[in-house]
Amino acid sequence: MVALVTDLLWPGDERAGDIFADAAVLAAMIRVEAAWLGALADAGIAPPPAADELHGLVDDADIATIAAGAEAGGNPVIALLGLVRPRLAARNAAAASWLHKGLTSQDTLDTALALCLRPAVGAILEHIAEQVGSLSALARRHRSTPMAGRTLTQHAVPITAGLRFATWLIQILDARERLTAASAALPVQLGGAAGSLAAVAALAGTPEAARRLVAATAAALDLPARDPWHTSRIPVTGIGDALVTCTDAWGRLANDVLTGSRPEIGELVEEPGEGRGGSSAMPNKRNPVLAVLVRRAALAGPPLAATLHAAAAATLDERADGAWHVEWATIRALARRTVTAAAQTSELLRHLRVDADRMAATLAAARPGIDAEQRSVSPGARAGTPYAGAADQIIDAALDRARPVGP
Amino acid sequence: MVALVTDLLWPGDERAGDIFADAAVLAAMIRVEAAWLGALADAGIAPPPAADELHGLVDDADIATIAAGAEAGGNPVIALLGLVRPRLAARNAAAASWLHKGLTSQDTLDTALALCLRPAVGAILEHIAEQVGSLSALARRHRSTPMAGRTLTQHAVPITAGLRFATWLIQILDARERLTAASAALPVQLGGAAGSLAAVAALAGTPEAARRLVAATAAALDLPARDPWHTSRIPVTGIGDALVTCTDAWGRLANDVLTGSRPEIGELVEEPGEGRGGSSAMPNKRNPVLAVLVRRAALAGPPLAATLHAAAAATLDERADGAWHVEWATIRALARRTVTAAAQTSELLRHLRVDADRMAATLAAARPGIDAEQRSVSPGARAGTPYAGAADQIIDAALDRARPVGP
Amino acid sequence: MVALVTDLLWPGDERAGDIFADAAVLAAMIRVEAAWLGALADAGIAPPPAADELHGLVDDADIATIAAGAEAGGNPVIALLGLVRPRLAARNAAAASWLHKGLTSQDTLDTALALCLRPAVGAILEHIAEQVGSLSALARRHRSTPMAGRTLTQHAVPITAGLRFATWLIQILDARERLTAASAALPVQLGGAAGSLAAVAALAGTPEAARRLVAATAAALDLPARDPWHTSRIPVTGIGDALVTCTDAWGRLANDVLTGSRPEIGELVEEPGEGRGGSSAMPNKRNPVLAVLVRRAALAGPPLAATLHAAAAATLDERADGAWHVEWATIRALARRTVTAAAQTSELLRHLRVDADRMAATLAAARPGIDAEQRSVSPGARAGTPYAGAADQIIDAALDRARPVGP
Amino acid sequence: MVALVTDLLWPGDERAGDIFADAAVLAAMIRVEAAWLGALADAGIAPPPAADELHGLVDDADIATIAAGAEAGGNPVIALLGLVRPRLAARNAAAASWLHKGLTSQDTLDTALALCLRPAVGAILEHIAEQVGSLSALARRHRSTPMAGRTLTQHAVPITAGLRFATWLIQILDARERLTAASAALPVQLGGAAGSLAAVAALAGTPEAARRLVAATAAALDLPARDPWHTSRIPVTGIGDALVTCTDAWGRLANDVLTGSRPEIGELVEEPGEGRGGSSAMPNKRNPVLAVLVRRAALAGPPLAATLHAAAAATLDERADGAWHVEWATIRALARRTVTAAAQTSELLRHLRVDADRMAATLAAARPGIDAEQRSVSPGARAGTPYAGAADQIIDAALDRARPVGP
Repeated sequence: MVALVTDLLWPGDERAGDIFADAAVLAAMIRVEAAWLGALADAGIAPPPAADELHGLVDDADIATIAAGAEAGGNPVIALLGLVRPRLAARNAAAASWLHKGLTSQDTLDTALALCLRPAVGAILEHIAEQVGSLSALARRHRSTPMAGRTLTQHAVPITAGLRFATWLIQILDARERLTAASAALPVQLGGAAGSLAAVAALAGTPEAARRLVAATAAALDLPARDPWHTSRIPVTGIGDALVTCTDAWGRLANDVLTGSRPEIGELVEEPGEGRGGSSAMPNKRNPVLAVLVRRAALAGPPLAATLHAAAAATLDERADGAWHVEWATIRALARRTVTAAAQTSELLRHLRVDADRMAATLAAARPGIDAEQRSVSPGARAGTPYAGAADQIIDAALDRARPVGP
Repeated sequence: MVALVTDLLWPGDERAGDIFADAAVLAAMIRVEAAWLGALADAGIAPPPAADELHGLVDDADIATIAAGAEAGGNPVIALLGLVRPRLAARNAAAASWLHKGLTSQDTLDTALALCLRPAVGAILEHIAEQVGSLSALARRHRSTPMAGRTLTQHAVPITAGLRFATWLIQILDARERLTAASAALPVQLGGAAGSLAAVAALAGTPEAARRLVAATAAALDLPARDPWHTSRIPVTGIGDALVTCTDAWGRLANDVLTGSRPEIGELVEEPGEGRGGSSAMPNKRNPVLAVLVRRAALAGPPLAATLHAAAAATLDERADGAWHVEWATIRALARRTVTAAAQTSELLRHLRVDADRMAATLAAARPGIDAEQRSVSPGARAGTPYAGAADQIIDAALDRARPVGP
Repeated sequence: MVALVTDLLWPGDERAGDIFADAAVLAAMIRVEAAWLGALADAGIAPPPAADELHGLVDDADIATIAAGAEAGGNPVIALLGLVRPRLAARNAAAASWLHKGLTSQDTLDTALALCLRPAVGAILEHIAEQVGSLSALARRHRSTPMAGRTLTQHAVPITAGLRFATWLIQILDARERLTAASAALPVQLGGAAGSLAAVAALAGTPEAARRLVAATAAALDLPARDPWHTSRIPVTGIGDALVTCTDAWGRLANDVLTGSRPEIGELVEEPGEGRGGSSAMPNKRNPVLAVLVRRAALAGPPLAATLHAAAAATLDERADGAWHVEWATIRALARRTVTAAAQTSELLRHLRVDADRMAATLAAARPGIDAEQRSVSPGARAGTPYAGAADQIIDAALDRARPVGP
Repeated sequence: MVALVTDLLWPGDERAGDIFADAAVLAAMIRVEAAWLGALADAGIAPPPAADELHGLVDDADIATIAAGAEAGGNPVIALLGLVRPRLAARNAAAASWLHKGLTSQDTLDTALALCLRPAVGAILEHIAEQVGSLSALARRHRSTPMAGRTLTQHAVPITAGLRFATWLIQILDARERLTAASAALPVQLGGAAGSLAAVAALAGTPEAARRLVAATAAALDLPARDPWHTSRIPVTGIGDALVTCTDAWGRLANDVLTGSRPEIGELVEEPGEGRGGSSAMPNKRNPVLAVLVRRAALAGPPLAATLHAAAAATLDERADGAWHVEWATIRALARRTVTAAAQTSELLRHLRVDADRMAATLAAARPGIDAEQRSVSPGARAGTPYAGAADQIIDAALDRARPVGP
């Protein structure tokens, strides 16, 4: 029986499913140990077949024990091994003696967190793909929908709604590039007690053989290989920065929706899904709750990414004395919340209604003031003459970039 | 059956028990609704007896449903009411029609969070009381234990270990003052849809009667009454600042323990408890894990308190569109982690071993350099003449302040 | 000739005058040294008259030299002393030999920063006093001005503009309390090399005499006395938290102005002062620039206060190895920006125009939806019946609290 | 006469020279306006020769006026234009009428900030090149120097000093990649009032011609061209993240130096330069001031990068109402401090002394405990048998990556 992940205080959290749930972290740690055991066996160092023996040795019922035991060693790996080793020994004493051999806790946990990040990034990229589709359609459909451009809250010059949507799209495309790059740079961590692979080399016979074990384990886990990075935390800060770059992009978009859906403006409407947007006291009120919750995530993200940088900067020795430990829950919070915000943004865009009539009415009411610049650069232009500049070209460039590549 | 709160990625988290667990949040929300219903009944507005009817209507099995429903309204209160109202109606239709009457979701949730903070603050203050005791004893015992004072990592002048402990103590006493003040300022939130108590006044007949309902509910919940603060979030930022002020104090102390327990220094030793401090790869290694985990909490805290300030500064209208929502999980993380760090610090201090011999040896090895200032101000002083300045007076002042007051 | 403080990248910065300018920091450091020298002389330890000798020994032309020399010692005090000592010696060799005697750099700099904070806090409190006046008048004047209350950007129930202004007022009154308390807790720092007053006690003869020197210097500088707090940084985090609590309050108010001054809403207007609010490209546009700049300060503040907490938590030994050093520029930025934001908020409130007609029009357009709650609690009420709840009582309580005390 | 940039409260700041000084910002804004005027002239839109006319029209004496005027428009560009236009008109009335034509303040300022970042990044990359050289030499020289590896402050297993230096090197190489990529992505900003190039297209005749003007201006300024990014701030958050990634790397290195230079450890020594490291009270003390000041910068950086993300996430409309404004001073602080930290780190590495004897002594004292892992994996190994694992291979890979490429 799998415990449901619930969070009353982060509405929408269930959208992140079991990403980074304790059960997922546990499974990832086991996968790392199994891959390592498998690599040792494949290399003829440990007796075959060892890897499979780990399956089914722990389950969710063990989480509380491991969690409670994590404090004693400062991380959950030692407690996990304490539980697994005797169970494995009962199956296969030789395998038990090779379990985790040559590794250090940080190897297991860093690699497990990289594994846990993969479905998070995958889910985000899927949602972004949908968003890119929604926004491309919006930009295309509203390419010629006039609206008031606004700067510092005031009417500036007319633009098109398509241009606005293109700016949302461009930022999301940029964010996707960041996330893809940062995710690809999340490597395996396998360095042993002090990042030198000393025990591994002793077990494998040569340094070269030790590095081949690292490569084999990385391949088995489908993660990039890399020399140990116990105290060089750029892979971690990189993914944090990328996740926040995503919530920044969605947050900006949510701000526009929130402003646009004010009743006095009414140009953008977050269409309520089933039962969404209700108020406890005012039954007829329709709140743009998805935009509200996305904005929430955008407020929460930057300090978390900063925590990862602060941790990286507080690192020292061959393993940090607290700076490493603060990363784990921080990454988890960032990952789950970014997945949740991704899903909420996708749904928001799916149901976003653009009220071209209200846009036109706003623009009409803003005249002639809003045409001042146009009059100044095109003195002869009649009121209402399009003044879209290169909006079409900007939109087209964004649509080009957004187009899915491939067969 | 109560689900255990587990957190593989924040070792020690179980020390916070069920503080701010979903079950506790749920119970607190019900308590607020019950107190309100009770106040309405006591005032003769709702039919008596209404309050007790809420007992047992929801339990932990409902959490997943409420959590999943929270997104639709943007907060868990609406989903909770949707679940509770029909169940209550089955018992008592009149009571159901008065449930949450006059309130808004923010009233229930803000007040529930204040209720959830109370046991957190209570636990922290208990731990601080123990820490004050431990530190008073350490300061007294090592009043005359000489050690090298260090500035910018280098030996400066001799001090006494008692003085060092007194500086820890003073910071903790200061932090306690902050926490006590901030906690006392956590009020009930009862303002209705837009913070004007409009519906309440309509129900109660007069504004004065409305405010009496607020006062009665506050009294029932043992929270201070206050005019609505939906968009004036100083109670929230105040508690966040105070919690971080606590982790700052423990973090500084942990830094000293971590430095002092380096084998080359060896002046402070975090004595391992049962099974504590082990290493997965190096069985004979003893890690100062409590200090490591406390330092971790101190690294994590400041960005969370900053999130609360950012939220306060992003507030607008009669309820913020995301800034309110980001507070909840942020406060919970701060509260649970501060309780955990409090407990870990208490245990750390309970088991802290001071190696006066190593201190003396360090000091001896630092001579004559470390005596340079003394030679300059007391040219005739013999090497080793005490140079404690007002350390005793500073210690005594701290001990005086630390002394428990009361019968 | 005094160099003007300019900052092209923080518009409005000149409102902070020379608060925390290098010249002010230099003058404050000299004041601390002079007060100490004076206390030593008054106690008969140093030869009288020593204190006056420091006047005029350095001026703004020395700042570049001291700044360039600050890196060598890690702080500006050592470079300052290197410059001052020979100049003083040329006047009075005995005084020069007593200069800074018994102190450490941190004593001079921490105390100087406390001195520099005083005019900052003073200026902020003056601006707050004006704001309290403006807001009291606004709350009074618009006590019965109906407007649409808004939650999550949507119309909720009618409120009065006076209630809204009262919530601004209440938050500013709360912030003032924080600032006043934190400012009163900013003490002198006088502890000597390792915070034990060892050299001072040697010079003064007894620890008690050493503490009397501290008290006398504190009195001369009009700062509270306190035992050394080199590594217990709550006075610093406290003032940081209080300053940010102020910008939070103004930021919230600025958000309301920015939203209210959107042309589609038009309920609040930041009346332009002379030449204010212009646009480089759109001459007829009027931007709410004061509100924009206040909001900017509110965005910048929380991470700076978090830096102070992170520094406090990274402190160790008898003086921190970087954590102390990061405080200085952080406090300066916070202080200058808070003073600037205070002044901008005062001016904003002075010129805030409330458009009661637009408010009424919005409300009318929001009907009947916005009256849904009223209809539900007062089924018989006619549309437009006041629904202000306890707004008057809340306003009166705020006005009472705002009333200046004294003769 | 150029005013010197001084900063008593950020020792070492003068190392950043005039990067982002008000004079540099002013010059950069003028360069942008001149390039635009030049592009207009080259395209036959404005009368030739216009660009040169801007030279010498403003100088440092105008900074105070522009700074004071910046508040009125919310940014310094409007004040600058107000000063420049009449002066230019006196020279060339036609040129004055074309000044800034088609642009908006944000175009000028964003592009000017990109220009100001260039010398900052250039200086950092030069310092990094030197650091890479220093660290390559250290890693090579100490390839076989044994030292105690440490995790969670405790002795773990033996490593080589070369491996430690290689981990420093790897992180700096990674940071360089980030900085280079982020810097290359800093584009010109030219979009006009609402980012549509509407006025420009009107002036140029077609949207295509408008975009050619953008490209020509970008080429003249040697910045990448890009469609308007007024409200898509990833270029800004990207550079902030990259700068902090640099200070993270140096901070980690500084932590190791600070720990290693503790007298009880003494394995690393920050050799004092001329007059460096003195203490005001303890003349014989030698403080590792460069490491202290680098650590300081590493503490200050993450919250500033978070501010840029918070601003990006608070952006809305066609120009943000405060979120844009908070970026400027934040980027400046990050840039100057990163340059300063880069220079300090370079000097630190130039003068870092490695005490191989102390390392050997520490290791000897740590035996036999520190050999426990080796004994367990190589039961027959004699005490003192090298246990370096793949350290040589890791070092070689780092050295390979560090090798300068080129002819």
